[in-house]
Amino acid sequence: MKFKRSERLVDMTYYLVKNPFQLISLSYFAEIYNAAKSSISEDLVIIKATFEERGIGTLQTVPGAAGGVRFITRLQESEARELIEDLCEQFGAATRLLPGGYLYMTDLLGDPKTLNKMGKLLANAFHQKDIDVIMTVATKGISIAHAVANHLNVPVVVVRRDSKVTEGSTVSINYVSGSSKRIQTMVLSKRSLKENANVLIVDDFMKAGGTVNGMKSLLEEFSANVAGIGVLVESEETKDRLVDDYVSLVKLTEVNEREKTIKVSLGNYFETKQEFL
Amino acid sequence: MKFKRSERLVDMTYYLVKNPFQLISLSYFAEIYNAAKSSISEDLVIIKATFEERGIGTLQTVPGAAGGVRFITRLQESEARELIEDLCEQFGAATRLLPGGYLYMTDLLGDPKTLNKMGKLLANAFHQKDIDVIMTVATKGISIAHAVANHLNVPVVVVRRDSKVTEGSTVSINYVSGSSKRIQTMVLSKRSLKENANVLIVDDFMKAGGTVNGMKSLLEEFSANVAGIGVLVESEETKDRLVDDYVSLVKLTEVNEREKTIKVSLGNYFETKQEFL
Repeated sequence: MKFKRSERLVDMTYYLVKNPFQLISLSYFAEIYNAAKSSISEDLVIIKATFEERGIGTLQTVPGAAGGVRFITRLQESEARELIEDLCEQFGAATRLLPGGYLYMTDLLGDPKTLNKMGKLLANAFHQKDIDVIMTVATKGISIAHAVANHLNVPVVVVRRDSKVTEGSTVSINYVSGSSKRIQTMVLSKRSLKENANVLIVDDFMKAGGTVNGMKSLLEEFSANVAGIGVLVESEETKDRLVDDYVSLVKLTEVNEREKTIKVSLGNYFETKQEFL
Repeated sequence: MKFKRSERLVDMTYYLVKNPFQLISLSYFAEIYNAAKSSISEDLVIIKATFEERGIGTLQTVPGAAGGVRFITRLQESEARELIEDLCEQFGAATRLLPGGYLYMTDLLGDPKTLNKMGKLLANAFHQKDIDVIMTVATKGISIAHAVANHLNVPVVVVRRDSKVTEGSTVSINYVSGSSKRIQTMVLSKRSLKENANVLIVDDFMKAGGTVNGMKSLLEEFSANVAGIGVLVESEETKDRLVDDYVSLVKLTEVNEREKTIKVSLGNYFETKQEFL
């Protein structure tokens, strides 16, 4: 069966976007569509130009016999700024303030559109790193981790607070939570990480950084490497931050329980090295 | 700025696929691309035909002034069968057997490709239902719930076993787990569900159905309705199933701890009413 260019463009766009970071050979497309490789190349030029023009991402071409093309989510700087400002507005609503100065964000972590924003932003921040797996901690980090994983096309592993029979044998560590100074436990299934894996740590909230630091210690137990740290919200009120090399989207700058107000601002996203479209 | 048809096809495909179930007016596209509505209509005919031909999904057209077009993930029956057979093969590996006859599936629930298969299959099963929100229970259900939510474009709410300060005020119920007959607790943040919401329940594993039944009781507390129940794996060894109206992808038919073997087969997916492309 022969496909017209218009049909190929639709199907290729879908396939590329649904398989980010995956190297796809031109022969693969040529065979599916029963088309010459030169036609496929022309299609890819159109797709790449449109993706870049519209701020969707880009196509990377790898030359040679083992080469091909891969789709990478990328942002324009203006779009990144817009997305983070949207997030700041969503997080800054006074109704989010909970007793104890905590922030209610469960609804945002369940909303697919908001998650996709976070996923795109963090994927743009780490797309140049060599990442084998994303690690997060149950429960609230899981949805963000998957949102990022959808763009980087890598698996997610979930650290738990307790050991469950369905995890098989596990490795556990104790760590000191940064803000409350309490001893806590973290558990990870032994099968979930390979040695020397490059791991992107993702979490929803970072205060002193005790939890993230705990995950770093856990990675040492697995002889794995930290490829990066991305958090959704960081709290500014902390003097002794245990973690310094991280990317945050939103910063919680002030919590006033008496007045029931919160203030949020841009995280350190634009202070970190970013490559935009 | 003017866009060529080829560029419009690429950008529209991306936009439609990234915003499933969202009704998009033709004027929206016409304005973005500075094109006549008749050209946009022609573009949509090409996209729809390609989506259906390639088993990606379909476009639904809503006529009238408030009308427009929406993308819906749909499967061809042959693809659904292939995906479920893939899942059976992945779940049926003897190395998955854990002490106590439990099944290790944490890796599959972290893998974006496998999750996307599950998400597509369950989205196809429930795309005709009126669904406002997907409900699941921490921890393992979360990733599947989001995989389905990505196709149905609805938020996810997560039921927990314990109440956390970051959830705000909560509603909790006690229920009896079907297989172990123990009393357990389930907690859901009060803000997470609106009255009369139509809820799709999604979980990773169902034995007697106690957990799913617990979620149903919790929905009653919120005066919400069960729109459907989808589980990844059901265990066959159960006589007194507490839940009957559900869709499962994989069935665990035999666990032999001594011989270290497990047997899996197709779930009830093809026995339930399905509309394929």
